[in-house]
Amino acid sequence: MLTRNDCARHDAGDPLAGFRERFALPPDVIYLDGNSLGALPRDTPARVAALIETEWGRDLITSWNRHAWIELPARLGDKIARLIGAAPGEVAVADSTSVNLFKLLSGALDLVPERRVVLSDTGNFPTDLYVAQGLLGLRCGRLALRTVEETALIDAIDGETAVVLLTQVNYRTGRLHDLHDVTAAAHRAGALVLWDLSHSAGALPVALNAAGADFAVGCGYKYLNGGPGAPAFLFVAGRHQERLRPPLSGWMGHEAPFAFDPDYRPARGIARQLCGTPAILSLAALEVGVDLMLEADLGALRTKSMALGALFVDLVEQRCAGVLTLASPRDPAARGSQVSLRHPHGYAIVQALIARGVIADFRAPDILRFGFAPLYLRHVDVWDAVAQLADIMQSRAWDKPEFHRRAAVT
Amino acid sequence: MLTRNDCARHDAGDPLAGFRERFALPPDVIYLDGNSLGALPRDTPARVAALIETEWGRDLITSWNRHAWIELPARLGDKIARLIGAAPGEVAVADSTSVNLFKLLSGALDLVPERRVVLSDTGNFPTDLYVAQGLLGLRCGRLALRTVEETALIDAIDGETAVVLLTQVNYRTGRLHDLHDVTAAAHRAGALVLWDLSHSAGALPVALNAAGADFAVGCGYKYLNGGPGAPAFLFVAGRHQERLRPPLSGWMGHEAPFAFDPDYRPARGIARQLCGTPAILSLAALEVGVDLMLEADLGALRTKSMALGALFVDLVEQRCAGVLTLASPRDPAARGSQVSLRHPHGYAIVQALIARGVIADFRAPDILRFGFAPLYLRHVDVWDAVAQLADIMQSRAWDKPEFHRRAAVT
Repeated sequence: MLTRNDCARHDAGDPLAGFRERFALPPDVIYLDGNSLGALPRDTPARVAALIETEWGRDLITSWNRHAWIELPARLGDKIARLIGAAPGEVAVADSTSVNLFKLLSGALDLVPERRVVLSDTGNFPTDLYVAQGLLGLRCGRLALRTVEETALIDAIDGETAVVLLTQVNYRTGRLHDLHDVTAAAHRAGALVLWDLSHSAGALPVALNAAGADFAVGCGYKYLNGGPGAPAFLFVAGRHQERLRPPLSGWMGHEAPFAFDPDYRPARGIARQLCGTPAILSLAALEVGVDLMLEADLGALRTKSMALGALFVDLVEQRCAGVLTLASPRDPAARGSQVSLRHPHGYAIVQALIARGVIADFRAPDILRFGFAPLYLRHVDVWDAVAQLADIMQSRAWDKPEFHRRAAVT
Repeated sequence: MLTRNDCARHDAGDPLAGFRERFALPPDVIYLDGNSLGALPRDTPARVAALIETEWGRDLITSWNRHAWIELPARLGDKIARLIGAAPGEVAVADSTSVNLFKLLSGALDLVPERRVVLSDTGNFPTDLYVAQGLLGLRCGRLALRTVEETALIDAIDGETAVVLLTQVNYRTGRLHDLHDVTAAAHRAGALVLWDLSHSAGALPVALNAAGADFAVGCGYKYLNGGPGAPAFLFVAGRHQERLRPPLSGWMGHEAPFAFDPDYRPARGIARQLCGTPAILSLAALEVGVDLMLEADLGALRTKSMALGALFVDLVEQRCAGVLTLASPRDPAARGSQVSLRHPHGYAIVQALIARGVIADFRAPDILRFGFAPLYLRHVDVWDAVAQLADIMQSRAWDKPEFHRRAAVT
């Protein structure tokens, strides 16, 4: 039987252990929600303060050149490219994940005009489905969104499929789609794939180009630790870039933004995917998180992530047997960096955990979601979290009115 | 003949004089580019630091409820509403001006499906035209963008006009469209109007509802002093809100974002215009700028703005007569809060001014643009700026190689 000392021993041998110090984690909290909002890197406050006080306050408008603000979306994109197996010039940072999904889904559909189906899985994150619904309602033609169970996805790709729209890691269950296999199956059928890497980037190594991926988007505020509502990124494989027509054709994606021509001409390369003026404050904060992630070995990151998840599953099964159901694949290699459990009173149980300083989250209707951000979590954190969870379940500490009261955001 | 002492006397009697202290202006700079990037409010660094360190760093994901992050787009929208003559619930803050233009132009076109023309003026800010071009290329139907000279705009509205798309204050010349007259003319012809208030909000009083306006967007980083790339705002008149179909249908605009339904159902009211997760860092910075602007009397702001512009025109005509041409209307009531001059070597002249600490900007092909943000500029600043300008013109100090070298951003 595993002990807390065993966990501490694992932490002592953890090659990533030094990263925990680089985050400003509150002392009395076990934070298992880095999959929803990543923790604050220690360097972020000083970087943002310098940006505000020196670059904005002192150098004002001249900072677009003097501090190269204008290059930030591409420079930061090139850094994120290294985390997701993309080449320089294939990634930019801009807008939100939802807006970027719209851009790339629209651009992808232009490339296969004779096909009519956007295929996704029923468990895709709702905004991905909503964005597809909005776009299809806007465009000409008989386009349709079709969703199937995730296990039936590959078999559902057929000659009518224009674009496969998938989130690599399911936000509820953590189940991982095989990037390579799905992309290959889509290409064999003549379809394109748009990947949402929101729960992948910074959580596990992603090899976009090795998989022959076409398009991807992802989130800056989860495992990349960019702060609440951080800008998102988008990837367009080099071979598609010059053929892609940006539907959101704003001035920052123009070939010559400061020529102030009346007609839109898309910039060469990934820059055409920019739209309005970049959010410099938010980009600067995100860059700190990405720089920190780039110091880590992504293989070691994945190894630790799988170990933390497996430890959590083992401990829950030992200590909460028969009370909580595993909602994630049991095989760590089949999951992203989260483990989910099911319980009819999931919401109240999560609130009871939060009241004890163990921060997880709830996803309707019955999912308790535990994220394991391997840069800053320890094995002892997992041990302590399960100890609280087991106690809450045994004592029914969750069954209090205040834990059933739903907040605006769950 | 006016003297610098006369200017100092005007400043001593300025009811807005106290606001200058509230900005962290560099001591050796005269900043005449607040129309491009507003100055830094003194309270912004502390507010952003608290947001980062306490709300993000300490309270982490719980801040969505605990610090009401989820309400920020609407709360800040209600504040901006007071600056632009809108009612509570008619304004939200989200995304960029370009993205918001796309949303509302698409929504507006749905309301007049039998009409085929988006009408704008040839001098509209390019991103407004680009966004219209991108949207029209995407949508079904024989939609077309038609541009006419700004003086011919009202007469060009006809029975084919679906939406009039206009920036109230011309970014090059500062010329002001009459919000009320254009809106009334459009409505008489059965058309709708989408106003871009990027150079209006915080520069002059705007009375959207008094003018019967339909839709508007605007910028957070100019006169609202929200910081580089601050989020933008959008206005939808109450009477149109429930009929508007959001083309960018992201989860934050869903009726119940945390129900995670697979089908998009738009939220009631302005909230349906949200798309992805709001950029909390940037919203917090913008709120400081908006709060500061709300302390000012907008009538006094406009009076001072017109006085500063008129002073600038008088001094330029006295001291640079025949050398620089006025590119703005002479009547201060016909301008926004900027004055533009024309010169074939405009770019180099602006660089020479910047080298002397007078920050203006250049707009191709030949416009020197001087913005007068009335919250923090003094009459003596205008005096001193024109003194430098006159000296540069007389001595041809602009005619040096380094001032002709074009930077990435102009």
